[in-house]
Amino acid sequence: MSLEPARAELLSLLGPDLILDSAGKRPYETDGLTAIREEPWAVALPRNRETVLQILDICHRHQIPLVPRGAGTGLSGGARPMREGLLLSLARLNRILEIDLENGVARVEPGVRNLAISEAVAKHGLFYAPDPSSQIACSIGGNVAENAGGVHCLKYGLTVHNVTGLVYATLDGTVRTIGGSSVDPFGFDLRALLCGSEGLLGIVLEVTVKLTPLPASKAVMLGAFHSLAAAGNTVARIISSGLIPAGLEMMDKRAIHAAEDFVHAGYPRDAAALLLCELDGTPEEVEADRERVDACMRSEGAYRVDVATDPAAQQRLWAGRKAAFPAVGRLAPDYYCMDGTIPRSRLAEVLETIDRLSGEYNLPVANVFHAGDGNLHPLILYDANVPGELERVEAFGSRILSLCVEVGGAVSGEHGVGVEKLGPMCDQFTSAELEQFHRLKAAFDPDGMMNPGKAIPTLARCVEAGGMHVHSGEEKFRHLERF
Amino acid sequence: MSLEPARAELLSLLGPDLILDSAGKRPYETDGLTAIREEPWAVALPRNRETVLQILDICHRHQIPLVPRGAGTGLSGGARPMREGLLLSLARLNRILEIDLENGVARVEPGVRNLAISEAVAKHGLFYAPDPSSQIACSIGGNVAENAGGVHCLKYGLTVHNVTGLVYATLDGTVRTIGGSSVDPFGFDLRALLCGSEGLLGIVLEVTVKLTPLPASKAVMLGAFHSLAAAGNTVARIISSGLIPAGLEMMDKRAIHAAEDFVHAGYPRDAAALLLCELDGTPEEVEADRERVDACMRSEGAYRVDVATDPAAQQRLWAGRKAAFPAVGRLAPDYYCMDGTIPRSRLAEVLETIDRLSGEYNLPVANVFHAGDGNLHPLILYDANVPGELERVEAFGSRILSLCVEVGGAVSGEHGVGVEKLGPMCDQFTSAELEQFHRLKAAFDPDGMMNPGKAIPTLARCVEAGGMHVHSGEEKFRHLERF
Repeated sequence: MSLEPARAELLSLLGPDLILDSAGKRPYETDGLTAIREEPWAVALPRNRETVLQILDICHRHQIPLVPRGAGTGLSGGARPMREGLLLSLARLNRILEIDLENGVARVEPGVRNLAISEAVAKHGLFYAPDPSSQIACSIGGNVAENAGGVHCLKYGLTVHNVTGLVYATLDGTVRTIGGSSVDPFGFDLRALLCGSEGLLGIVLEVTVKLTPLPASKAVMLGAFHSLAAAGNTVARIISSGLIPAGLEMMDKRAIHAAEDFVHAGYPRDAAALLLCELDGTPEEVEADRERVDACMRSEGAYRVDVATDPAAQQRLWAGRKAAFPAVGRLAPDYYCMDGTIPRSRLAEVLETIDRLSGEYNLPVANVFHAGDGNLHPLILYDANVPGELERVEAFGSRILSLCVEVGGAVSGEHGVGVEKLGPMCDQFTSAELEQFHRLKAAFDPDGMMNPGKAIPTLARCVEAGGMHVHSGEEKFRHLERF
Repeated sequence: MSLEPARAELLSLLGPDLILDSAGKRPYETDGLTAIREEPWAVALPRNRETVLQILDICHRHQIPLVPRGAGTGLSGGARPMREGLLLSLARLNRILEIDLENGVARVEPGVRNLAISEAVAKHGLFYAPDPSSQIACSIGGNVAENAGGVHCLKYGLTVHNVTGLVYATLDGTVRTIGGSSVDPFGFDLRALLCGSEGLLGIVLEVTVKLTPLPASKAVMLGAFHSLAAAGNTVARIISSGLIPAGLEMMDKRAIHAAEDFVHAGYPRDAAALLLCELDGTPEEVEADRERVDACMRSEGAYRVDVATDPAAQQRLWAGRKAAFPAVGRLAPDYYCMDGTIPRSRLAEVLETIDRLSGEYNLPVANVFHAGDGNLHPLILYDANVPGELERVEAFGSRILSLCVEVGGAVSGEHGVGVEKLGPMCDQFTSAELEQFHRLKAAFDPDGMMNPGKAIPTLARCVEAGGMHVHSGEEKFRHLERF
């Protein structure tokens, strides 16, 4: 690594678009995982693809590690900078290049905001379906890196299901085009591989996204329940009946009260759990689905079912859910947002176990999450200033993720692995599987210069973190036993 | 490679489930690409996962190349055997392991037939959506290897969109589990990577597939047109209007006449092209969509639009399309089925060029294909016994695929690359991209023993096949100039 000559070359290329002073670099010290900070060596803010390729060339020749960054809204620290690495922001590559109505796609640069795509195509009766809760700020390049989800992914799929083509570059400056506007991929599906690769395989330069017709009609339903189990069982019943709602979200009592205090959405304060269910389609379809959801809710013991058909009432019902995270944030000095998945059939049981563990660890939990996807987001409330409390939170959090793995789910849903989930990855995968990931990474980035240290734990780390166990003939690393 | 000791070990493991005599091996000499034949060294027909792993171990230790095979219906020669390699049939691993209604998935072994899944879950009001035309025979493991499509993939996606989890093994006998019944993948999406990997990366041992609710209502529409361009433009208009039919197929005059002569489906013989459009959903939705499709067809010049609402009439309309390949097969001693994709917006133009080329090469073509996906299947009619005719067919076929690439499509839609498309791959990808594929392959199979010689051409082959050109700063191999 030769930082000095690289700095001179980058300065000559970028001028004021290279940030070297500490004050200027401060906003880039962290992403959405604010607990972890680091001052980057330098921050590059290129304005076009050609400059990005020249930056890659400089980093390649001088062997400078590179951390790509979109809007910095990621929650797992995937854009955490390096003291001896370049932070490459793609935020200024923010042009919508083409809206192709005949093929139902848009070609955009990686820095385009998620919501900006839907805004640009709304006049054609279309939208871009994946909607992470950060959609007003997050960029499509970051969405690809994290394979971002959102409320509507239950019906419309994750980022990987809504991206038909990618242009990306590797550190040696080679630009590759994968997929395009036509539907069928062939050969190795690098498009899907790049989705969720967290900046380890390539720098995304252009994304072709699928556009979805705006539904003609919508309804939002609220079901109130006296127990978490009843709400969980309702989710399983709705999905197994063949209904695919546009969104199916769940909130527990603590989340309900926090949201209600904050935005007055009209939620029932006496409920132990509520479900919000959005239906869309033709008016007749929505009407028919409403009746079926109503029946599912009541048969599992809903004591109240509301339906909002006009946009204002729908917005009010969603307002509580959308404000739930900041609302819960008012309950304690700090909270830790977990992200894990479980099979929907195990929802009731897992929620009850989390509730029991909450007592055991003496840490309150609020649950507000994508129930239809089985994607949990327990928010653990704590005070970082109380000595030992953060450690207890981490232990509790690890316990929750281990529970997800035990019931057949995964340690990360839609927030990625980044630096946050390196430990739990040792739970989820065997050493053979992790070695496979490392070999795959090397096939794109033989020198290991693209976002090093993220997403895939080293085997040494897994051994240090916990015991090494023999599991069905394979080595299996677990740190479950610590707790 | 030590064939003799490997044979002894395999015989002791498999007994009569190892086929070594020429007569017994004959059915395995070819897959659906019958023009290419080879006698395999030996054929293994294991009955369970444990035996498959023991076979892998023997092949690994003795460095015997391995060609996996599902039902052998593939059209690009992906299961072509090797004279010095083991053909591993997965056909006997054909159990449906679990139908999980709560999570809306089924776990099946790789040898389970595609249609058998839909048959097994029909009583629950569900089906498995991807429906290649070979669905009565083809196996789900082969569907994963080829990322198979079908008529309904326009609405319901390809195999990759309907597989939530995979268990696979590499040659060293390591078993890996990717995904499961919960929706969100995370980390590198090996599940998607394995879909379409044509047996080069791993042997699929188990597949978890998504089950889709059977639609409450269906309609099949037929639109008849006086020109290919009008039918092509109708497809673009339907899709860009936001409609997503369950299927949207197109046939040209030669295909219409062949089908009509064969099964008397009631197609209009005076049409230059017809569209078959299937709509599904609630009765009200189907009714509303019917009106919109009718308007699209008529505004582009359809002179006749039929609608079939009862199942018998629907089956009759589909019968012609489904029998189109064998029907066209009656027109000439041989036909060559092409497979390429193009952006839907270029349909009319590409069909007209194919028609012109058909005259130039003096070879008749019938077109019957997945128009909604932009997935062409031109059938070139010829007589292999006429000297020089096969060469002319190959030249014409390559010209069609090059045309697909030129307009922004791909040289393979849903039939894979296999051995058939190795040449066109040189057109589609740059040397840097092909090198990336080879590195990826090596990350799973460092010794290159799994289905060697398929799916990815060597760079040497590309250089031999055509010129080497410099294209936007990169090497670009093309053999376009031969024609």
